[in-house]
Amino acid sequence: MLTKINHMGVAVNSLAETIPFYRDQLGMAFKGTEEVEEQQVRVAFLEIGESKIELLEPTSADSPIAKFLEKNGPGIHHVAYEVTDIVAAIAKLESDGARMIDKTPRKGAHGARIAFVHPKSSNGVLTELCQSSH
Amino acid sequence: MLTKINHMGVAVNSLAETIPFYRDQLGMAFKGTEEVEEQQVRVAFLEIGESKIELLEPTSADSPIAKFLEKNGPGIHHVAYEVTDIVAAIAKLESDGARMIDKTPRKGAHGARIAFVHPKSSNGVLTELCQSSH
Repeated sequence: MLTKINHMGVAVNSLAETIPFYRDQLGMAFKGTEEVEEQQVRVAFLEIGESKIELLEPTSADSPIAKFLEKNGPGIHHVAYEVTDIVAAIAKLESDGARMIDKTPRKGAHGARIAFVHPKSSNGVLTELCQSSH
Repeated sequence: MLTKINHMGVAVNSLAETIPFYRDQLGMAFKGTEEVEEQQVRVAFLEIGESKIELLEPTSADSPIAKFLEKNGPGIHHVAYEVTDIVAAIAKLESDGARMIDKTPRKGAHGARIAFVHPKSSNGVLTELCQSSH
């Protein structure tokens, strides 16, 4: 069902202040930024092997990422696993008794279709399923 | 310098209660457990693509993972990147002004040599460098 870690999402106060650690100190390839209006974030992508680090900077005080930062400070926000068929993956998890935040896929960065598992069903780890558009 | 996400470390109260989510609901391959005495944890390994999820259960109340659980509850504890030469990687980060928790490598699970970057230098994300033994 799952093929790889698609990305790890990291909540940051400032993309500009955080990108240098990943790009210059760790040496990851910087793959640009994108604004995801639905989630009120600006996202920077950095490539590492078959996965990416997604740095998430809130674009409004109502953004879920702004609320996360207020409560926890900057840090790892979620992990996303690549799935081949997100509709089938949601159905499988629900039939296994897992609680989904998204029962139907919604739009993520880069045109991906995404769905979050509820942290109650994933032992406190906010877990995203992600079906890439390519 | 970095080749992939080696693993994501997840703090859990109980391996037995957490493994089923990763193995049965998400379908990851379970690769066994190991006790890492130096860090006072029992670790379960689950494979996902080129990476692993490491579930970390404390074996004593003094374990850094026990303290993390007390403060935050279960959740993502750290991310580890595979490096080809950990001594060179530590030297490069320090010359770039990053603060290391470990200035010389210590022993991790599976005989790996590991070193942690200080969260102050990695924007709140506890970041491990890991040179696998194989």
